[in-house]
Parts: sequence; C-alpha cells; structure tokens
Amino acid sequence: MELLKVIKIGGNVIDNPDAMEAFLESFAAVPGAKILVHGGGAIASRTLKQMGIEPKMIDGRRVTDAETLQVVTAVYAGLINKTIVATLQKYGCNAIGLSGADGNAITSRKRPATPIDYGFVGDVEAVNSGTFDALLAAGFTPVVCAINHDGRGTLLNTNADTIASSIAIALSGNHSTELILCFEKDGVLMDKDDDTSVIPAIDKPLFEQLKAEGKVNAGMLPKLKNAFDAIDAGVSKVVIKNSAKLADESGTTIR
Amino acid sequence: MELLKVIKIGGNVIDNPDAMEAFLESFAAVPGAKILVHGGGAIASRTLKQMGIEPKMIDGRRVTDAETLQVVTAVYAGLINKTIVATLQKYGCNAIGLSGADGNAITSRKRPATPIDYGFVGDVEAVNSGTFDALLAAGFTPVVCAINHDGRGTLLNTNADTIASSIAIALSGNHSTELILCFEKDGVLMDKDDDTSVIPAIDKPLFEQLKAEGKVNAGMLPKLKNAFDAIDAGVSKVVIKNSAKLADESGTTIR
Repeated sequence: MELLKVIKIGGNVIDNPDAMEAFLESFAAVPGAKILVHGGGAIASRTLKQMGIEPKMIDGRRVTDAETLQVVTAVYAGLINKTIVATLQKYGCNAIGLSGADGNAITSRKRPATPIDYGFVGDVEAVNSGTFDALLAAGFTPVVCAINHDGRGTLLNTNADTIASSIAIALSGNHSTELILCFEKDGVLMDKDDDTSVIPAIDKPLFEQLKAEGKVNAGMLPKLKNAFDAIDAGVSKVVIKNSAKLADESGTTIR
Repeated sequence: MELLKVIKIGGNVIDNPDAMEAFLESFAAVPGAKILVHGGGAIASRTLKQMGIEPKMIDGRRVTDAETLQVVTAVYAGLINKTIVATLQKYGCNAIGLSGADGNAITSRKRPATPIDYGFVGDVEAVNSGTFDALLAAGFTPVVCAINHDGRGTLLNTNADTIASSIAIALSGNHSTELILCFEKDGVLMDKDDDTSVIPAIDKPLFEQLKAEGKVNAGMLPKLKNAFDAIDAGVSKVVIKNSAKLADESGTTIR
C-alpha cells in the first residue's frame, strides 16, 4: 500500500511566523502523498478581543456561540488556511485548503447541549475518504483546518488533533498511514522540565509503566491516548516531534 | 463540447441571508458542470470597523494594506466561502471552496504602486484550467472567492467579476462556457429607475447604439464591456440576471 503521511501542526508554531515558514518549507519537501492538518493558534482569540467580543469560558473551555463561530471560521478556514496554502505553493507544493464542508470531507455532530452547552462545537462523525483519495490522486496536497459541518448547513468548530487522527484512521484502509504530530518540543519528555529527555519510542507496556510511575505529564496524556487509539484503528505509526525537525528521524515514535 | 456554467453572485445578495439561501438552493439544482464565483459584500467593511481599522480610500477606492488584506482574506475565503459551501452541501451540491492559491487555481500580479498604491490588490494573470478540470472531473463544484496569490507566497485581493470572466474564458478551450452574472436586478435596464425595462438581448451594434444614446447607466458600462470581452475571448454567452430567477430564461443575454 502507498505510504501516506498525515502531519499536524499545532497552535504555538502557527503563532510564530518564522517557525511556521521554516516548517512549511520542510513540509513541502516531504516526498510522497501527504496531508497537512493545522490548529488555530492565538489569532482567533486576539481577533475576538479586537472585535470587542468577550470570550465565554466554562470550566476553562471556550464556548463557541454564533458570533465566535463566525470569527473562528474566518480566521481558521480563511486567514490561517490560505496563508499556509499560499506559502506551500511558493515552495512548489500543490496545496489545496479544506474545511470539513469542502467536498463534504469531514462531517461532525454538534455536541449535545446538556450537561454543558459549548455552542457550535462538533465531534467528528465521518471522514469522507473518497474526497481525500480524489484530491491526492489529482496531485493535490490537502491542507485541512478544524472547521467542519454537520451536512445540514451548520459549520462546527472541532479539535485539530482529533481531525488529524480521524483522517489517518479513515485513510488507513487503502494507504499505509503515518500520523506525525508536530509541536514546539522534541517529543514526549521523560522530565517535562528537561527538553533533552525525549523518549525515543513508546509501546503500550511502556505507556502503562510511565503512567503508573506518574512520569507522563497531564498535557501529554490525551495526546498519547489519541496516538494509541490511532494505532489500534489501523494507523501504522504515530510520531510526536518538533516542527523544526520534520525531515529527520527524531521525536517519539508510538507503535 | 460539454456545457459549463460559470455563475457569479454579487455583494448585495450576499448581504441578504434569505436571498442568499434561496439563490444557493437554486444554484445547487442547476444541472451539469458549474462553478460559483462570489463577491464579498459589506461584511468585510463591517468587520474592519468593528476591529477599529479605519478604511483607507483613494478616489473612492479601498486601499488594501497588510491589516486589511488579513481581514478580507478571513472574511471572503473563510467566513463567506465556507458558509456558501456548507449551504450547498446541505442542498446536495458537492461544493469545494477555493481561493486562487488553492491548487494554484488563479495567479494575480500585484498592481504597480505608481501612480497610486492600492496595496495588496491584484490583477488576474493566469487561470490554471487544469485545476478546475481536475476538480470538475472528480465531481466537485468549485466555489471561488476573489482572493488570489502571486505564486510567491503573497495573497492579493482581486475583483470578483474579473475572476468570473477570467475563469469562463480560460475554460472555454475545452468547454462551451456560459457566464451568468447574478445580482439584485432583473437584467440590464433601459431605464435605471424602471425595474421592468429589462433589455432581453444586447449584441454589439445595439450596445454601440445604447452607448451613443446615453441609455446605459455608468455602473453597467464596465459590466457590459467585460461581458463583450468574454464573448470575444471565446465564451459562448453572457447573461446578466436576477439571482432570484436563476432557473428561468429571464435576464439580459449578451452575444
């Protein structure tokens, strides 16, 4: 089966134009079939502030009301997505930007309003692998933001990590898919205060051991759980690594 | 040759959600190959105002500085484009949203800064018919906003009417293309104050006569000139009509 790399770039890098430019140049140079999934960064929050829209939070999580949905759709699917696509085109990568609504690529289900109403937030329902296959076959490199739709005309804000793993899982039926999660650290750290303490590989027994010893920090736990879910669902390999080191074999490999 | 309809929807309709919804339902029902091009409407200006960005105008034309470019990219390529795409998906049309950067669909050249520097404004350089052909062949309906790129990483704001006619011209090589310009009036009016005075058809001799008699109003002149340029460049037919009457044979036909 053809190898397909699904690469996700996270928020902190998106907020740093120089790091982003360097990452996109290295992404453009990745050979073979690939898909880029991007998060949102802090631009949406800054824009909401500038527009005088007060962020609504419940238990530290953002509530996406109708006005907020308009701003995140504009910023994620418009400003960030098109800036990435234009930069990739400059580096010779024939990128095509997508929300989940485009080509009906990804549908989401609005999260139930009880017990807590987070507004226009969606959970991934289905990835339309036919849309990705058709675009890849035509020589395009899909660049996917985390805005999706419910198929009934409503846009929904979803989680970019989940989008990336859902795409990797859905396309593992007819590709050998690798999921590469890029961020500003060198990988999963044994000691979160020591950037050189990267764990080169984690399998399930080691993951259980690290959890039992309390050595995986809280922020990394859901990322690792997500990674093992992807492996269980047919993804060949998951790598968590530094966005500045896309081309080399660094990072933490999850098998 | 296969018939291809390039349909453009203008600003005044985009600002009216009910009219827009009705138009998109009728667009989804148009049989055969089709492309939608949309303008921007007043949302970008309202957003700029809300963000405290003072519109810069020279001789009544907007100057697109770096900050304004970010906002129009967000609003046109993000908010408006994805709202249209999600609505078309609801009506069973497999829409895929594009800026000119996506799939390198359309490249523009930044307008020279002398005598007047309008900022990040582009004039269409080339339409990549291969990108549109590939998407149409895969069963997608392209939905194109007026944001383009220069191929060197810079996004540029362009004119949606010009985008529509450039696409119709570029695809007339291997399609029989019709360009349909939709707005809030029933067509080209003999008397601009009488909405029932629609001229059913205009050929070049009649256009010259109407101009000589001063019967075409100033706002319509560039639209008509654009239409005849499209005919001269290989487009089979141009129709100027009401967005609420897409399905019928109304409007002004230019041949």
